Formats: sequence, C-alpha cells, structure tokens
Amino acid sequence: MRDIITLTTDFGYSDPNVGIMKGVIFSIRPDVRIIDITHQIPPQDIMRAALCVSSFHEFFPQGAIHVVVVDPGVGSNREAVIVQTKRHFYVGPNNGVFSLLDSEPVKAVKIDNMDYCLPTVSATFHGRDIFAPVAAHLTHTSIDEFGPEERDLVTIDIPRPVMEANGNIAGEIIGFDHFGNATTNITAEIIRKAEAVTEHKKVEVHLGEHRISSLSYYYQSAHDGKPGAIINSFNFLEIFIPNGNVEKEFNILKGNAVRIVFGQTD
Amino acid sequence: MRDIITLTTDFGYSDPNVGIMKGVIFSIRPDVRIIDITHQIPPQDIMRAALCVSSFHEFFPQGAIHVVVVDPGVGSNREAVIVQTKRHFYVGPNNGVFSLLDSEPVKAVKIDNMDYCLPTVSATFHGRDIFAPVAAHLTHTSIDEFGPEERDLVTIDIPRPVMEANGNIAGEIIGFDHFGNATTNITAEIIRKAEAVTEHKKVEVHLGEHRISSLSYYYQSAHDGKPGAIINSFNFLEIFIPNGNVEKEFNILKGNAVRIVFGQTD
Amino acid sequence: MRDIITLTTDFGYSDPNVGIMKGVIFSIRPDVRIIDITHQIPPQDIMRAALCVSSFHEFFPQGAIHVVVVDPGVGSNREAVIVQTKRHFYVGPNNGVFSLLDSEPVKAVKIDNMDYCLPTVSATFHGRDIFAPVAAHLTHTSIDEFGPEERDLVTIDIPRPVMEANGNIAGEIIGFDHFGNATTNITAEIIRKAEAVTEHKKVEVHLGEHRISSLSYYYQSAHDGKPGAIINSFNFLEIFIPNGNVEKEFNILKGNAVRIVFGQTD
Repeated sequence: MRDIITLTTDFGYSDPNVGIMKGVIFSIRPDVRIIDITHQIPPQDIMRAALCVSSFHEFFPQGAIHVVVVDPGVGSNREAVIVQTKRHFYVGPNNGVFSLLDSEPVKAVKIDNMDYCLPTVSATFHGRDIFAPVAAHLTHTSIDEFGPEERDLVTIDIPRPVMEANGNIAGEIIGFDHFGNATTNITAEIIRKAEAVTEHKKVEVHLGEHRISSLSYYYQSAHDGKPGAIINSFNFLEIFIPNGNVEKEFNILKGNAVRIVFGQTD
Repeated sequence: MRDIITLTTDFGYSDPNVGIMKGVIFSIRPDVRIIDITHQIPPQDIMRAALCVSSFHEFFPQGAIHVVVVDPGVGSNREAVIVQTKRHFYVGPNNGVFSLLDSEPVKAVKIDNMDYCLPTVSATFHGRDIFAPVAAHLTHTSIDEFGPEERDLVTIDIPRPVMEANGNIAGEIIGFDHFGNATTNITAEIIRKAEAVTEHKKVEVHLGEHRISSLSYYYQSAHDGKPGAIINSFNFLEIFIPNGNVEKEFNILKGNAVRIVFGQTD
Repeated sequence: MRDIITLTTDFGYSDPNVGIMKGVIFSIRPDVRIIDITHQIPPQDIMRAALCVSSFHEFFPQGAIHVVVVDPGVGSNREAVIVQTKRHFYVGPNNGVFSLLDSEPVKAVKIDNMDYCLPTVSATFHGRDIFAPVAAHLTHTSIDEFGPEERDLVTIDIPRPVMEANGNIAGEIIGFDHFGNATTNITAEIIRKAEAVTEHKKVEVHLGEHRISSLSYYYQSAHDGKPGAIINSFNFLEIFIPNGNVEKEFNILKGNAVRIVFGQTD
C-alpha cells in the first residue's frame, strides 16, 4: 500500500506553499494521508535535510512516499528524481537530500514525464509543480513511468567521526534540536567500539573548555545548569543542559569539535 | 468510537519528532485521525500544558484520545499513564499535565505492558516509543490491558484567585497567547460571584500602575493603544490592547499581580 | 463533493485555537479533510490574508471550503459571511479578506442562522464558535440555509502598479516570504504589456539605490550576495538574493517603491 506521503521542506509555516502542495496532492489522490515532518529545515540546508530523512524513515510503514524539498537550485539544470529503496520511495531534487536513506537504492529515475506534473511548471516552485503531483501519482503508478533511470544520484559528505589509535574519538557538532540540545556526529556504535578497544576505561566528553565526566542515561540525571552528554533517541551523542538550552547558554556552533577521551585509569 | 488522537507537546516544529509520532501511530492504526493541538508549549512547562488541556478537551467528540508530552523527567522513574474520564482518554507522563481534565478520572493505569510500546524504548523520546504506540493501540484495546491501576495521579497547583471580604479579587497573569494578550487566573465565575457580593458596583482592573476602568465585551470596543480587559473565550479575564501586543508593549510577566477592585459608588 | 476544508488564520501555532477548530469540525463531520494553509498571517493583517487567498485557491479541487479568520473586529457588528464562486466556498468575517477570489462571487450570505453555530457564541473566538461549525455544516447543507443574501461584500484596495506613458512601471513591495524574498505588486501580465509598448528594450529594476540589470529565470542565475529579480511562482515580480534574505540584508520594508525602467537603447 502506497497511501502515506510525508513532506519535509524549508518552506516555513508563514507562506501558503505547504498547503498548496497538499491541495495539489488531494486534487489527484483524495484518499491519501499526508504527514508533515517539518517545514523548518534551515533555508537551503541540504545536509540538515539529509540528516532529517535519516532520522524518520524507519518509523513509517512499507511503501511510504517521502517528499523532500530543500532545493536552492530550483529551476536550474539540477534533476528531479524518484529513489526507490526496499521499503520506501523518495521524491525531490537530485542535490544530496537523499544521501542517507533506509538502505541502498534499488532504483532511481529522473523525472521527465511531464504528464505527471502540473500543466505549467514554474522555475521557482517545483514542490507544487513537480514533486507534489509526482508523489500523488506515484501512489498508484509504477516508478518506471516517470522517466529514465538516473545513474548519477548526488550524495553529500556528512562529516564522520574519527576513532584514534588510543580509542579516543574526534567528532563535531552537526546541529541543534528545538530544545537547544547539540547533536554530534558521534554514533553509539563508534562509542561501543572504542569502549571495547579501551577496555571500558572512564570516559570524558570535551567540548571547548567544557569537560563532561560521564554519559547520562536520561536528561534529569545530570545536574541543573551543568552540561550532560547522552546517547539520544537517534543513537547519536548529544550534549544538553537539564531544563536548559546548551546552544544558547554555551554559545555552541555547528562544526565545533567534540572529543571523547578515555581515562588512563578506571 | 475512539478514532481521534490529539497531540500536545513542547517539541516545536523544527525537528522530525512530531512527524515520527504520526508515522508510529499510522503504522499501527492507519485509519485514525490525528489532530495537532500545539507543539509550542514552552519547553518543560507542565503548568502551561495542563492549562492547555483544560481549554481544548470539551471541543472534541466522546472517546477522543489526548496525548500530552511535556516531559522533563523522560527516562527517569516518573510513570507513564493513561487516564480515563467520562468523555475522553489522556496519555502521557504522570507529572501533572493531567491536573485539569474534563471531569474526575474514572480510571488511571500505569503503562507497563511493553507489548504496546515500540520494541526498543529509548530514555529520551517516550513520545515516539511509548505514548504514540499506546495511543494507537488504545483506539481498539481496553485500558486494563496496558497495566495496573495508578493510584497516585500527580497534580500540580494552579494558582487560584482570591476573593477578599469586600469582593475585590486578587489574581495573577498565568500566560500569553499568540497575540500577546495576557491571560489571568481570574474566572468569569468568580467575577460573577464578586459582583453579587458588591451589588454590581463599578469595576476597575489594576495591573501594576495601569487602571482599566471597565470590562470590554469585544476587543475593538477598547481604544487603540489603551489596554482593555475582557472575559475571553475560555472564560478567563484577559488583558489586551486592541490591534496591539500587551505583553511586549507593557513588559508584562507571568506572575504579575492583577486585581479587580469594586468602586465605593456607582 | 465538498469534503475539503482549508484553514487560514493569524492564530499562530502556540495556542490550542487551531486544534480546537478542527475538533469542532470533526465533531460535526468526521470524514472531512482539513488542510492548514498558514496560521501565521501577521496579526490583523487583512490585506495579507486576501493576498494569501488569491495565491492558493486555484490549487484546490472544485467544492473546497476555504475558512479565513483574520478578524480584528471579532465580536463587534461586522458581519460573518459565506461567499460562493463558481469553484469554491469561502467562510469568514466580512472585512475584506475575500477581496481577491478565484472569480466573481455567485452568491454571498450573511451568517445568521445560529443552528449552525456552537450553542454559546463568544465575542472573541468566532473561528471556533461560528466559522468552524458553519464550514462543517456547509459540506452537506445549501448555502441558503445559513442566512439572507449579503449585498455589501467588503473589499479592500490592494495597491496596484501603474504603467507610465513610456512603459516604465511604478509598483511597491507588498510582503515577504519565509526566505525573506520581497514580493512586489507588479504582475507578469503588466510587464508583458510594458515590453510590448517599449518594444522589448533592456529592462532595469530599481529598488531604493539598488539597480538590478535584468530579470532572472531562476534563483541561482543571479550572483551570490547580489540581488536578483524574478517572476515568481504566483506571477508577481519578486526581489531576492540567491541563498540570502533580501528583507534583512537590505532592510527593505513593505510599501517601498519598486520601479521597472526600460532603457533607451538595447
């Protein structure tokens, strides 16, 4: 069943654009369900869109269609694509927003069949003119109908954490959530590997001059006003202040270095 | 019929978290309707969540399931609960967000049956791992299936207005709406009682140095740039400026005292 | 089929008001689909609401019901109306929000049949008490049931661009989108007419001291950091900075003059 369409954009909530995309979808396929993921991806932030996609796809049923429109190159010669994986479909610009999917793409097509787009395609709003109608038609149309195979799916480099010989890990801040919690690119998996290498020595998290002396299991186990570190619900290391906003209170920026340092003694 | 689920959180609109909760719900129960109340409860503001719930429940049909996730203690030993009243079900943390329901609870259970949660429960996102799947299952499952009775439902103290012997009322600002209108904790009901006591003498509203000399019936009946006082659509006294923003223009804060003073002569 | 209801308001996203309107609608008509256009019309900005309506209506199917609540006069003696055009229905205050519909109204009625409103009508929240229930009932009730004909539909003046004898066009900034792009009131249509008059001479766009020396076809064809001008997806001239925010970076205000000047030589 392909009857769920999700929408992820940088369109914000003040303009009618997202509502218009839904009008286009319902005009073609009245019985589909549409779910907003977020429309507040920072403008033109393709990496943030890719990370967002990687965090939500697994919670949607088989056959869901994910539309992602963060599209600084709209109207230029960048391609529009549909990407199919084992579980889902993805519709959007071929600019890197589909760098972190649920699994390796099974197929990708370049959208060039104008029968599935609005009659007039503008140079500034492909969410309305291409991606919304294509997603609606994709609910009951084979992916092959939309265009030829796309062999050059654009992916972007997401900065990866590095495990050093002594097991210490060098990573960085890659974003902030609504509470001002700072997400790093350090995964639970690499920490587990490093713990094995270092034989579970005492761990310290370094962020600028801040030293966090252990990992918390839940937010309130850290002390009020003091930063804590936790493996978050998406399996990334996250820096937080209980009931606070670490981004604002500590003036942390995207790209700031974060290190996990294992102690000499236990 | 239990096929409406409402969502009230402090998750904001920039993260995928609310969309993920909907993916979880639709994966379990594809035909339910989900209504966003708001996702901009101020972070960790349990009282604001409780007041929000008290303002919306009556406008939903019998059997609606209201999920409320304002949850600073997520992952700690605070309980997760389902509360049933005569008309509705409420799902969320047992931390006070359910202090002001439509009527006395008929039943409350502690959620401890993991069959109705996601296979992995994180320590930081129970909205996704517990509350969303529980709400979805609750649409067609008896409340008794989810766990044992909860005998200690946490409630928080909402500051109450005081009517003095002469009928004057002492209250306070408890929040602001999107327009910057200031809501007080003074209800239409207590004003009516005071009017009876004081035999409908002339009323004045005091807020800091501001004096408002009567109650308005509608917003534009006050003068531009001058504050007015009105019984709002939730039956609380509200201070406003027509076409203005009383919060910002007068620098009013939550907790500021508001007094209703009845005149000596008519 | 009248089973789509859209909502456009200035209620914002932090209060429960929009969710409450949906609860009222679903209580009356459980199987309707509700689409949020935006709830961030600037408070009390009737012109912005009218422009918003003009931009989205064409993308919704025949029979859609559009509820628009930007309503500074709520509770006063301003009327509530339903307006029917060839394609759609519009429900809201009679204050000018329906100045730019899809076509000339076929019929307009003044809402005065209280059977289709909530039992208690407040003076401050007609979105909940009148417009939501009326829209829900309108899905299966003749417009004539709601009240007598409204012969005095309020419209507001939207500033119009002026084409001068030499073909130059004088217009102004009428708003900004989420990206900070500045929309003008200069339409693609008037530019085409002027081009015919001036025999397609070279065009320059003047905004304060800024000179933009041609129209872009898509956003990234302008140079980073330099302003561009483009016919946007709603067929208005728009000023932008590629990957930037022209509103903030150039301190542009609503009402600022914009001129299209045709060169003497090609």
